[in-house]
Amino acid sequence: MIVALAGGVGAARLLRGMVEVVAPSEITAIVNTGDDTDLHGLHISPDLDTVMYTLADAINPETGWGLAGETWRVMESLGTLGGVTWFNLGDQDLATHLYRTQRLSEGARLGAVTSELVGSFGVGVTLVPVTDDPLRTRVQLADGPEVGFQEYFVRLRHEVPVSGIRFDGADRATPGPGVLEALDRGDPIVVCPSNPVVSIGPLLAVPGVLDHLQRRRDRVIGVSPIVAGAAIKGPAGRLLVEMGFESSVVGVAKWYASWVGTLVIDEADASLAAAVEAEGVRCIVAPTIMSSVERSATLAGTVLDALG
Amino acid sequence: MIVALAGGVGAARLLRGMVEVVAPSEITAIVNTGDDTDLHGLHISPDLDTVMYTLADAINPETGWGLAGETWRVMESLGTLGGVTWFNLGDQDLATHLYRTQRLSEGARLGAVTSELVGSFGVGVTLVPVTDDPLRTRVQLADGPEVGFQEYFVRLRHEVPVSGIRFDGADRATPGPGVLEALDRGDPIVVCPSNPVVSIGPLLAVPGVLDHLQRRRDRVIGVSPIVAGAAIKGPAGRLLVEMGFESSVVGVAKWYASWVGTLVIDEADASLAAAVEAEGVRCIVAPTIMSSVERSATLAGTVLDALG
Repeated sequence: MIVALAGGVGAARLLRGMVEVVAPSEITAIVNTGDDTDLHGLHISPDLDTVMYTLADAINPETGWGLAGETWRVMESLGTLGGVTWFNLGDQDLATHLYRTQRLSEGARLGAVTSELVGSFGVGVTLVPVTDDPLRTRVQLADGPEVGFQEYFVRLRHEVPVSGIRFDGADRATPGPGVLEALDRGDPIVVCPSNPVVSIGPLLAVPGVLDHLQRRRDRVIGVSPIVAGAAIKGPAGRLLVEMGFESSVVGVAKWYASWVGTLVIDEADASLAAAVEAEGVRCIVAPTIMSSVERSATLAGTVLDALG
Repeated sequence: MIVALAGGVGAARLLRGMVEVVAPSEITAIVNTGDDTDLHGLHISPDLDTVMYTLADAINPETGWGLAGETWRVMESLGTLGGVTWFNLGDQDLATHLYRTQRLSEGARLGAVTSELVGSFGVGVTLVPVTDDPLRTRVQLADGPEVGFQEYFVRLRHEVPVSGIRFDGADRATPGPGVLEALDRGDPIVVCPSNPVVSIGPLLAVPGVLDHLQRRRDRVIGVSPIVAGAAIKGPAGRLLVEMGFESSVVGVAKWYASWVGTLVIDEADASLAAAVEAEGVRCIVAPTIMSSVERSATLAGTVLDALG
């Protein structure tokens, strides 16, 4: 059995490769919900959906999020009404949010609803929200107010300076059913190449998760989302710097050192392998750019082989 | 100035005719919100939307509800997810509900949101929800549980016996801004041909409304939704009987007698005019079937002429 800690696009790609090399039923992914947002009354879980759609081979391959063959009728109409349209929701994608919100309003927990959706999408990997409780990443803008994560990430296109990040609700959150159990089994734990600050950070903020990871440190292997000093996608590099770390594989190693025993870095960063190891983190150099399912599968194989 | 008490389709048609004979800006419609429902996390106001869409000439002419040229992408996707699809929501229509729900979540009141939507749809009539507070028509099934109105009306297709109706929240509801003021101006008050029990009933249940109507009884004129013993559409006839009244213009007159001074009945019911007047309600016989905008306009003219 394999456990993965997952954010959005990068995690989705690694998991999509992983199911080429091990059976989907062997994989449990613990997914970030700090990105979740309430908009139009709907409960939107972007990371859960990106992972689910990708594993279902239903993802929009051009954007890396949303569904292939999507239409935009609702958003177009909402635009003519002067509604909030900066967070783009396709017509098919909206059905996922309507389903989730209706089930939550009926009293179902997020984890249970996720299982239902994953089943409908024919996904064999077990996806577990890190918590069923409200968890919301909040971003303190250096020159403005504190905003919700999606407002920072989508509306402001993560182009503005940030002075702080906090995970609202984390202190009152309980790990979702199965989360701590999965971490305790002694299985390999793969930290997907997701944003260390705002995708993996919320997972660590849920009480109990970091402790359990630290106890299993020798079984935890991460893939650096930073390649050649920058994130493949998104604000990981920028946020690491804003949090006082370097935008490099060494910065990632420092950020993760207390609970990640092994870090896979890209060949482009081979010269930094010794610096990573100087942080007390075993370093593996491999191609990490997941530009195809084949490359994702190769990377997944490298990661799993590394822990034996 | 003219005030109208409105439910859904029948009211929408009379109002659509009315704007042919008087300026839209002269008309204030006080609209039922007892039909409102929360589904998928969305606040849906079917009567407000039916009136708004009809006045915007955007209504689906075949169904009498929803929007013309509608598509159903979201519902189709929701169906494949096993979601709740008995309440059909078109893609364009969904935009209205997303807009409304988002604005309500921001703290806007239903009346203010309605004004915004009415403006976006280019409607000149003032639409006022009877209350901004929660008001939900609940239907006690004779052979089953109490259900929400839409569950009775749409899911069960109003084909089941009913033993009781109540308007949940009415006792704590405050009339919307402008409602009592409109009723107090001494203007003609037109009771549209809506379901007396479940469309007009909720309006009367909001504290203050019935008192104000009774004080203005000589300025209140109704159009019977019952023609030749049956409702043009919907369960009005059946519900009148279940509430202990007749499914006839006489039943309507009895139901309305305390606050409606004049009732317009269809030519098909001319023989019952004396029986209506025996209830103390002045009776006018006229063609009331609104099968075209022209016929609606003629009926609106008849109604307005009757009060001078």
